[in-house]
Amino acid sequence: MQGIPLSASIDRMIARALDYKKNPWRDVQAGARKRIGLIFLNPSLRTRLSTQVAAQQLGMEAIVFNIGSEGWSWELEDGAVMNGTSVEHIRDAVPVLSSYFDVLAIRTFPGLSDREADYAETVLQQFIAYASVPVISLESATLHPLQSLADLITIQELELKRPKIVLCWAPHIKPLPQCVANSFAQWVGAWDRADFVIAQPPGMELSETFTTGAQLVYDKAAALRDADVVYVKNWSAYRSYGAMGTDQDGWMLQPEDMEKTNRAKIMHCLPVRRNIELSDALLDSSSSIVTRQAANRVWAAQAVLSNIIQSL
Amino acid sequence: MQGIPLSASIDRMIARALDYKKNPWRDVQAGARKRIGLIFLNPSLRTRLSTQVAAQQLGMEAIVFNIGSEGWSWELEDGAVMNGTSVEHIRDAVPVLSSYFDVLAIRTFPGLSDREADYAETVLQQFIAYASVPVISLESATLHPLQSLADLITIQELELKRPKIVLCWAPHIKPLPQCVANSFAQWVGAWDRADFVIAQPPGMELSETFTTGAQLVYDKAAALRDADVVYVKNWSAYRSYGAMGTDQDGWMLQPEDMEKTNRAKIMHCLPVRRNIELSDALLDSSSSIVTRQAANRVWAAQAVLSNIIQSL
Amino acid sequence: MQGIPLSASIDRMIARALDYKKNPWRDVQAGARKRIGLIFLNPSLRTRLSTQVAAQQLGMEAIVFNIGSEGWSWELEDGAVMNGTSVEHIRDAVPVLSSYFDVLAIRTFPGLSDREADYAETVLQQFIAYASVPVISLESATLHPLQSLADLITIQELELKRPKIVLCWAPHIKPLPQCVANSFAQWVGAWDRADFVIAQPPGMELSETFTTGAQLVYDKAAALRDADVVYVKNWSAYRSYGAMGTDQDGWMLQPEDMEKTNRAKIMHCLPVRRNIELSDALLDSSSSIVTRQAANRVWAAQAVLSNIIQSL
Repeated sequence: MQGIPLSASIDRMIARALDYKKNPWRDVQAGARKRIGLIFLNPSLRTRLSTQVAAQQLGMEAIVFNIGSEGWSWELEDGAVMNGTSVEHIRDAVPVLSSYFDVLAIRTFPGLSDREADYAETVLQQFIAYASVPVISLESATLHPLQSLADLITIQELELKRPKIVLCWAPHIKPLPQCVANSFAQWVGAWDRADFVIAQPPGMELSETFTTGAQLVYDKAAALRDADVVYVKNWSAYRSYGAMGTDQDGWMLQPEDMEKTNRAKIMHCLPVRRNIELSDALLDSSSSIVTRQAANRVWAAQAVLSNIIQSL
Repeated sequence: MQGIPLSASIDRMIARALDYKKNPWRDVQAGARKRIGLIFLNPSLRTRLSTQVAAQQLGMEAIVFNIGSEGWSWELEDGAVMNGTSVEHIRDAVPVLSSYFDVLAIRTFPGLSDREADYAETVLQQFIAYASVPVISLESATLHPLQSLADLITIQELELKRPKIVLCWAPHIKPLPQCVANSFAQWVGAWDRADFVIAQPPGMELSETFTTGAQLVYDKAAALRDADVVYVKNWSAYRSYGAMGTDQDGWMLQPEDMEKTNRAKIMHCLPVRRNIELSDALLDSSSSIVTRQAANRVWAAQAVLSNIIQSL
Repeated sequence: MQGIPLSASIDRMIARALDYKKNPWRDVQAGARKRIGLIFLNPSLRTRLSTQVAAQQLGMEAIVFNIGSEGWSWELEDGAVMNGTSVEHIRDAVPVLSSYFDVLAIRTFPGLSDREADYAETVLQQFIAYASVPVISLESATLHPLQSLADLITIQELELKRPKIVLCWAPHIKPLPQCVANSFAQWVGAWDRADFVIAQPPGMELSETFTTGAQLVYDKAAALRDADVVYVKNWSAYRSYGAMGTDQDGWMLQPEDMEKTNRAKIMHCLPVRRNIELSDALLDSSSSIVTRQAANRVWAAQAVLSNIIQSL
């Protein structure tokens, strides 16, 4: 997200979000006569709806636009001779969108084939470059900041003193982006209120850009010992870019794994593939706080959005 | 629809709806700062729009979400190992939706191959089970209550003293659900203000669960005699589940059929396949009240929705 | 657009639009408790969003409905035996929509194979015929009036005294409708505040119905001499209906072409295929006013919409 430094302001953002959670409508005048355009190049449930809800609670109009299904697919390459299937260049579309909205928000996924292009955040950066209004990321190729803010809000609500947080890689049936894991590592690191361990099979290490301060562990059991929070998430390889990881065996979190923890709470950003990433037994247990985590997306979005409209 | 008993309260609901029809905005404060999520697993025109209109007139925010096209398809089976195309389990999605909305509404269609599963209302019942807010059916596998309420409103407006109502099976080119017919039979039966006849070819009888008090007739001409209202509708077989009915000849209502009636009004829930289910001549005649019937969907939705938000 | 005469009222409409541009919210009470239904049979970005924005600024509720993807495809032929893929007849759907909305708006594209059918505006005319509320065209088979009003607003803002305007045909990779060009020619002609030249390759002449008063030129260089405004646009043939034009060479506007002009501004309705219709060099130059032109869609829509709701 643009304009939100990932350091000292995190506690302030969490506090602001939790304040909205207590009184959702306290700033319902703040967004009057303001509009946010939610532009989706990829599907979304929680992100889209929580942002719409946050906007409503700030008195803003939120308009959803699904590029591709409702509009035309975008050309992203500079200098392209547009004789293919893309009907409009992002550099033409975004200035127009900027004229219609006070704030823009965009979701885009990585291709997972060209690491440099994905990590250059080509789409998001172009979007920002061509926009003349503030831009919120609703998940980009490599980061998902609104998710991470909601994650920290959820951890803050546990009222733990310097918890041990384990980000624990999980199996999946297809290659997923690294963005949720990258962002979580980045925010937990910047927050600096927890001991942070990332557990993954060899080869599945995240980019070091985001994991500063984290302890990388290849032994799931060791990682989980005395954990207060276990954040379960699949991601594909950063090094052998987009690879799924051949050795997934034993990485689906099991009830017996939890015995080593400090009665840890289980988090996941959803959607979750049951009995692939996480078993029914754990998802349906009282250890799981995934629903509250997703519910907190509203307050994260509202804190960020209110921050932005204050500055308009 | 949950929480609306199908008996003495029907007259009250009709009166409430007709009251809104006279003064659409009388309760525009009632839904302030409330939100309804309209979740569609299947397409909709009248149901979606009339519910949005009703919500606006109650001062509520309505947010439409098309599962599948805008989000991810849902897994419905308990205990599923989610290694296929479904990305999210309904038991994870619905609690989250409940946290975003004060009321949820869902549309889902039957598969028409497994009668037990369809009539168990698996999707709707799961949705209700996992929701922590009131749930409105926008048509489910076997019932369409908002349609039936609109149907009775439309009949009430005719100001007939104990009318003879004929639900008359019509041909179609593909197997349709029984839900509109089931619901109509159920509501007319519970309402108990009419003589009620169901005319269908042999084999096309509805489930007896819904047809208590109705007279089943296999001779269309006999059924129509002295009818005040003819509700034309196709449905597939309940017994030989999902079958279309081999003997469709003569079942498309004709202008000459109407001569036996008491200048009956013609109803249909729409969409209607012209010249298959109903001829142009009848649809475009003054006997047809299908447009008014569809318009009344607004008042049905508003009556139900206002009832629900009163209880929040 | 219905009810808007294309003559003396154009200056008034432009003034009204520019007035809204200065004070977007001055009539925010005008549309209170009013609803517009935006019905799309085809994709849209600018038209859809600018109309939603205009509606919001008038205090109106705008509801978008994508026929086909969200609802069911429409049958358009009178008397059709509906045994195919179309599930609902336009003559049944539109009266229902009229009951839900105070104003309706529809977008539809031509088939480009049957000129007579396209130029009879079958879909739009049926829509209007079956509607009982005012109908706004969001682009139809042969015209795009809201675009043309925005175009004239944009030209008016240049504050030129009787400018020379050149509508200049451009290459494309597939056959496009003539509607933007038709409408622009029609409005510029009716406006009568400019010298108007249309430049196209032989065979690409527009229907004479719309080009009265325009000078038709086949030599691009000659046409551009001393031009103040160059409106670049591709269209397919009217005469050899739907043909793309075999001789596209040399018709993509080049920076050197602009040297002959009176430092002309470049317009295009967007989306534009870069380096096919218009080069990057020109689109990214200060001569291009395409973004402002698209931004002005809001004020055009707001002027028209406010005019209509005044009359309700």
